[in-house]
Amino acid sequence: MRRTATGPDRERHSSMSTQDPSTQDRLTHIDDAGAARMVDVSDKDVTARTARASGRVLVSPRVVELLRGEGVPKGDALATARIAGIMGAKRTPDLIPLCHPLSVSGVKLDLSVADDAVEIQATVKTTDRTGVEMEALTAVSVAALTVIDMVKAVDKGAVITDVRVEQKTGGKSGDWSRS
Amino acid sequence: MRRTATGPDRERHSSMSTQDPSTQDRLTHIDDAGAARMVDVSDKDVTARTARASGRVLVSPRVVELLRGEGVPKGDALATARIAGIMGAKRTPDLIPLCHPLSVSGVKLDLSVADDAVEIQATVKTTDRTGVEMEALTAVSVAALTVIDMVKAVDKGAVITDVRVEQKTGGKSGDWSRS
Amino acid sequence: MRRTATGPDRERHSSMSTQDPSTQDRLTHIDDAGAARMVDVSDKDVTARTARASGRVLVSPRVVELLRGEGVPKGDALATARIAGIMGAKRTPDLIPLCHPLSVSGVKLDLSVADDAVEIQATVKTTDRTGVEMEALTAVSVAALTVIDMVKAVDKGAVITDVRVEQKTGGKSGDWSRS
Amino acid sequence: MRRTATGPDRERHSSMSTQDPSTQDRLTHIDDAGAARMVDVSDKDVTARTARASGRVLVSPRVVELLRGEGVPKGDALATARIAGIMGAKRTPDLIPLCHPLSVSGVKLDLSVADDAVEIQATVKTTDRTGVEMEALTAVSVAALTVIDMVKAVDKGAVITDVRVEQKTGGKSGDWSRS
Amino acid sequence: MRRTATGPDRERHSSMSTQDPSTQDRLTHIDDAGAARMVDVSDKDVTARTARASGRVLVSPRVVELLRGEGVPKGDALATARIAGIMGAKRTPDLIPLCHPLSVSGVKLDLSVADDAVEIQATVKTTDRTGVEMEALTAVSVAALTVIDMVKAVDKGAVITDVRVEQKTGGKSGDWSRS
Amino acid sequence: MRRTATGPDRERHSSMSTQDPSTQDRLTHIDDAGAARMVDVSDKDVTARTARASGRVLVSPRVVELLRGEGVPKGDALATARIAGIMGAKRTPDLIPLCHPLSVSGVKLDLSVADDAVEIQATVKTTDRTGVEMEALTAVSVAALTVIDMVKAVDKGAVITDVRVEQKTGGKSGDWSRS
Repeated sequence: MRRTATGPDRERHSSMSTQDPSTQDRLTHIDDAGAARMVDVSDKDVTARTARASGRVLVSPRVVELLRGEGVPKGDALATARIAGIMGAKRTPDLIPLCHPLSVSGVKLDLSVADDAVEIQATVKTTDRTGVEMEALTAVSVAALTVIDMVKAVDKGAVITDVRVEQKTGGKSGDWSRS
Repeated sequence: MRRTATGPDRERHSSMSTQDPSTQDRLTHIDDAGAARMVDVSDKDVTARTARASGRVLVSPRVVELLRGEGVPKGDALATARIAGIMGAKRTPDLIPLCHPLSVSGVKLDLSVADDAVEIQATVKTTDRTGVEMEALTAVSVAALTVIDMVKAVDKGAVITDVRVEQKTGGKSGDWSRS
Repeated sequence: MRRTATGPDRERHSSMSTQDPSTQDRLTHIDDAGAARMVDVSDKDVTARTARASGRVLVSPRVVELLRGEGVPKGDALATARIAGIMGAKRTPDLIPLCHPLSVSGVKLDLSVADDAVEIQATVKTTDRTGVEMEALTAVSVAALTVIDMVKAVDKGAVITDVRVEQKTGGKSGDWSRS
Repeated sequence: MRRTATGPDRERHSSMSTQDPSTQDRLTHIDDAGAARMVDVSDKDVTARTARASGRVLVSPRVVELLRGEGVPKGDALATARIAGIMGAKRTPDLIPLCHPLSVSGVKLDLSVADDAVEIQATVKTTDRTGVEMEALTAVSVAALTVIDMVKAVDKGAVITDVRVEQKTGGKSGDWSRS
Repeated sequence: MRRTATGPDRERHSSMSTQDPSTQDRLTHIDDAGAARMVDVSDKDVTARTARASGRVLVSPRVVELLRGEGVPKGDALATARIAGIMGAKRTPDLIPLCHPLSVSGVKLDLSVADDAVEIQATVKTTDRTGVEMEALTAVSVAALTVIDMVKAVDKGAVITDVRVEQKTGGKSGDWSRS
Repeated sequence: MRRTATGPDRERHSSMSTQDPSTQDRLTHIDDAGAARMVDVSDKDVTARTARASGRVLVSPRVVELLRGEGVPKGDALATARIAGIMGAKRTPDLIPLCHPLSVSGVKLDLSVADDAVEIQATVKTTDRTGVEMEALTAVSVAALTVIDMVKAVDKGAVITDVRVEQKTGGKSGDWSRS
């Protein structure tokens, strides 16, 4: 994985280099004494924000056939993951200790079956004081976990990979996209 | 990614080839009409079961420094992810629609900071009618999401990768490990 | 039931006939590809909204006596259902997959014991981008389920019926009431 | 409704007349001082138990067309309600104050579109100290609420009706079915 | 408070002196590397266990009058706290990171209004691998918080005090009571 | 305890005497019929509000040594309680029946180990229609319960005491602090 890892790593830095110089040298969720805290966002503006995240579940050829409905009806398989992902987005502040609760105003999950993977994309919108990157990543992760749960009797070895933010808009740090 | 993906894929099949022939040709969570269901496990035995899952969060060199406490106290950073993962394991049936609620009897999260990633491993135990693979994968995913939340001000491009079951013991399908 | 059902059905149409022509020919929660989504309400106005819903739990004469405290103290029986309903209203987005989380600003539950039923009414208020009809219906349903739980040892056959929105105010589609 | 109500009422009593004489004259969830309590079931046997509940959502003809996919793909509409119902069954002890948490071992939701209604049936299994009637009723209610949420833009007047236990097996009070 | 504190402190030690020598010199929830973990209880016996905890909310004389219903109906005030406490006991593993989920088999909350306080007592039962001390303490704490919420408009200064385990039975460490 | 109790009691009244005369003679959460309700705050202003609460867990000398890391690494002990408290603040409306859901914009937990107790302080901020006193008190209570869970194998007799609001700012009733 190292080599592949380096790939996104390099992109990441080109794309980061112009972002948030102010916050690049500390973990904002940890105070000077090293204690975790929910960062105070009272003074941030309430603005429209969106985030898009993606991820993939690597599955066996047999699972691909089943999810494509070859031979058997695929039925609710992808719908279950889609709905789990949407509900997962709403549970983000319950799951991630330092996430702010916020009023998600829209969630869209796209799942498609590629030759060796289920591709997942989540788009989340809000009008609030913080961004929805974590909500989008949580939606992708919960949908991916649900895919694994659906297929695990057929394929114990499925792997969740490449869960990452693709793009965000709005907020003080402005727009960002993975170059 | 395709090449790397093929790697685990191949392993997966060697390791799968002797598993569950009975269930390999259908999605157990979908009935003949295509409807999602929570599979009836009433007749399965209550036995001791364990699962170990792992995953990685690819982060920038600066994040590695911060999480290693170079220059600044790392404080609660990894503890927050560890605790989030343990709590996440308990939330699995709330998040994954068709997962059975079960009485988790032990959860251990190990996080370590490698040169370009945070490595996460979760071990979950139960004595119940179903396995805890999903609980272990959920623990890893929630811990990984929490790591991203902790570092996102410094590194917007962090990526969750290689979330997968490493080993399971107990239950009708017996022991399994990723070869 | 068919005949009775037709009753509300007919009302419903007279009352519907002037509502939302724009949305009457599709399921807004399903996109063109048939995928469930949480509708994007980012552009809707934040306005004061209310909804009132009602429902009934048909119970046996003995249950009516007990809930009226004839012979025995009724104690917390109705209070338990009232509180469960109020808490249920707050859980709506956790339960209904495509509901938007919103900040409920007031909830009132009224329970009364009629000759053959417990009558339940819920009024919910918010100042947000979407209405609270689902919150009011969920409050009524959870209160009704709690009534059944309270009385089931005495009356296994209790029935929840006529759970419906009576009135709503605010929002783009304006005021509506069951004629 | 009164006349129709009397119908189930009468059934109910014939069917009740041979049930639980011991508990017929009090609300078990209320102690002698009138205080709500979670009844102590420590001494009850762990046995296999099932419950089947049903309910209906009365909808307009246009909704029936849409849910049958006439003209447009119905897509995830019924799947969303089915999955919400399954998840709702697992949330029962969170919603109903005096319900015991128990390990649901199987949940099946059946939804079908009749001429003027969506018919819902839930079957829940457990091997535990208490029955799963409340889990089955909660599954039906949450699925029904989800149907209303899906169709409310088209039909504000949908009504949930006839939510009731049809049959239970196992436990001290033995088998019961609505005659 | 020091003096009063010393009181329970002293008791505590007399009562502790014969307990769990094996575990008295470490924090069982922290492993040798200092990491939090959910202790593995797989090998502990499933036995009947009970715990009783108590606590008090110090309130103003006016609040005492109101809660005693002098002049005005006290209505659901204490019932709300009682029900919140029962529900709180069920939420314990969601709230306390390292608590094991367990199947609570009975919960009783007693609230009484003394001259300067609301006295709260919770008794919890289970048949499981771990004790229910935390469930009893959580029930008392949530009931106490609910009392404060009910009275805070009248008395901003209410104080929760003396929340503690009074007695436990069952389990490897056997019976214990505050001497 | 009575004497100590009178202390805060007296303070309380001096500090209360100038507060909210309007609401001092009723329980706002109970309507005229005695029914619990979630008070309608639709007409209250959205303003910046803060609350600070504190509490203490009385523990044995051995626990103090362990939490100070004398001899053994204290590791995640206090971090676990800190994170539990932050997450607890977000769960307040799920736990306290009549609390309004609100968007917490910042939470800080401070824990320190005194000679006979763990001292806990929580500061919560929001910009909403109601105050965050209950969120601050819930954060302190959940952190305190977590401390007890961490130490209970060593000290069964730990006691939570003095959980109370220290200060609030914002809102119609203005600023308040415990004199």
